[in-house]
Amino acid sequence: MVDLQVYFLGTSGSVPTVERSLPSIAVKRKGEILLFDCGEGTQRQMIKAGLSPVRNTAIFITHMHGDHIFGLPGLIQTMSMMNRERRLMIFGPPGIGSFIRAVHETANLNSGFEVEIFEIKRSGVVYEDREYEIQACSNDHDIPGYAYALIEKPRPGRFYPEKAKRLGVPEGPLWSRLQRGETISLPDGRVITPEMVTGPKRRGRKIVYSGDTRPAENVVRLAKNADILIHEATLGDELRERADVEGHSTPSGAAEVALKAGVKKLVLTHISARYRDVTNLLLQARKVFPETEIAFDLMKIEVPLPKD
Amino acid sequence: MVDLQVYFLGTSGSVPTVERSLPSIAVKRKGEILLFDCGEGTQRQMIKAGLSPVRNTAIFITHMHGDHIFGLPGLIQTMSMMNRERRLMIFGPPGIGSFIRAVHETANLNSGFEVEIFEIKRSGVVYEDREYEIQACSNDHDIPGYAYALIEKPRPGRFYPEKAKRLGVPEGPLWSRLQRGETISLPDGRVITPEMVTGPKRRGRKIVYSGDTRPAENVVRLAKNADILIHEATLGDELRERADVEGHSTPSGAAEVALKAGVKKLVLTHISARYRDVTNLLLQARKVFPETEIAFDLMKIEVPLPKD
Repeated sequence: MVDLQVYFLGTSGSVPTVERSLPSIAVKRKGEILLFDCGEGTQRQMIKAGLSPVRNTAIFITHMHGDHIFGLPGLIQTMSMMNRERRLMIFGPPGIGSFIRAVHETANLNSGFEVEIFEIKRSGVVYEDREYEIQACSNDHDIPGYAYALIEKPRPGRFYPEKAKRLGVPEGPLWSRLQRGETISLPDGRVITPEMVTGPKRRGRKIVYSGDTRPAENVVRLAKNADILIHEATLGDELRERADVEGHSTPSGAAEVALKAGVKKLVLTHISARYRDVTNLLLQARKVFPETEIAFDLMKIEVPLPKD
Repeated sequence: MVDLQVYFLGTSGSVPTVERSLPSIAVKRKGEILLFDCGEGTQRQMIKAGLSPVRNTAIFITHMHGDHIFGLPGLIQTMSMMNRERRLMIFGPPGIGSFIRAVHETANLNSGFEVEIFEIKRSGVVYEDREYEIQACSNDHDIPGYAYALIEKPRPGRFYPEKAKRLGVPEGPLWSRLQRGETISLPDGRVITPEMVTGPKRRGRKIVYSGDTRPAENVVRLAKNADILIHEATLGDELRERADVEGHSTPSGAAEVALKAGVKKLVLTHISARYRDVTNLLLQARKVFPETEIAFDLMKIEVPLPKD
């Protein structure tokens, strides 16, 4: 069973359409939910996707444009009505704190749980869990913004039972501990480290989200070898100049980022309301990077562990 | 052709569901759009209903709970992106101004048009057009709130061509002016008033929206003889006590208001997320007031001119 899924909750840019809600992406990992951006309508899209707002641990905001943050007040209110008790962490550029506090103070937004806000001042690791970390890096929009990467820490290497047997480690709980990466002591006093019975550590998975941005070298670096790069492609290649002026990307621009970063798969999102049929956008990107898809609302991608 | 329609944009209470968006009602009258409440998702529901945010003249907010106001920031932003130039009027209880200003100041909400905010301090006429007025009256929720009525002014009475002929008014433009309610002068100096050639003035239409409230005498008075009363019915009759504690109505409570007010039709809305099948709610109301319907998202009701 795959324990990592990406849900595209809202895939439009700037204004919603009949088909596309405003930007938000949920990553569900071992039951935990991380949100990236929270446009208006996110809470309802979560309900439609079967994702509980109560299991949401943290929200990462790319930039302070309304279409990426106006779902926060309603989501916080709904979490409160669902009697959430666990704290909620919100990460974003400077300004995210004053926005949330201002809504709190003027709109009866009483959360029965702690909302902890982290304003990101520079690129780097912004959140670290036992098994993964979230990195932020500056992107290139018309206001300051961040791209984010979820990077799983390396997993313990493959376990070799023959090696364990040869070293006299009895099958059972001690094997499990070695498999989890723990060092053990045998009754005769010998110390066995995981490295003595396992292969090299195995890489985890990596998912990168560009936020609103022109094609940017920073994002190429962040996305290096990612399993999935989710990149904005607001306007088609025929409007490349306008995209550049407004701080956005086109499909081929996003595809070039994917190509340079050597990612496995590119998913385009933040599609302008002007495109109802996205075939042309897809062709523009695939010419540069064939492994491209265009996100649609409630699309779900499974990210299996790499085979190695 | 009927020139007055009511669109139910969002019909849930407190939290959205797969089927129901958060509260908002649009009244379209002769091409003009008036919104009542603006829960999260309203702008997208307008798009789905084919209602242009640019033709929206005024928004009337019943009370300052998030589920009724969190669609305002995104709607204002979208109006701005659509290059709206006409001013937007927003009416609501005290506090609506500081909420909108707080979002303006903290979230890059730059509207290219004037947003004029009217905080309603007491019951009465809050907005007057040439052909209709909007009355607000205090309702009975757990925070201060208003019910609203759209009341069309009486239309000129029926025109009697024989009377005009008998008075020597020549057929043509002078007839039209009399029909529109204007007084005219004839070439021979005689003055003809509309009353001399028309029947009694004819009543206009009346639409009333309760907002979140317990059954309230104030709302009964406001709704007197209304064509449509839109009343909240958050919880079923089996939860009447809880509804009362939380400042809400049940179907039979709302139906009693409709009965006392002698309205033509009752439409229940603000349905709790716990009810997916609303049959019981409908039966509870119809026992008291048979002309009841339960709103669903994007339901549209035509309100024809009364026959008289």
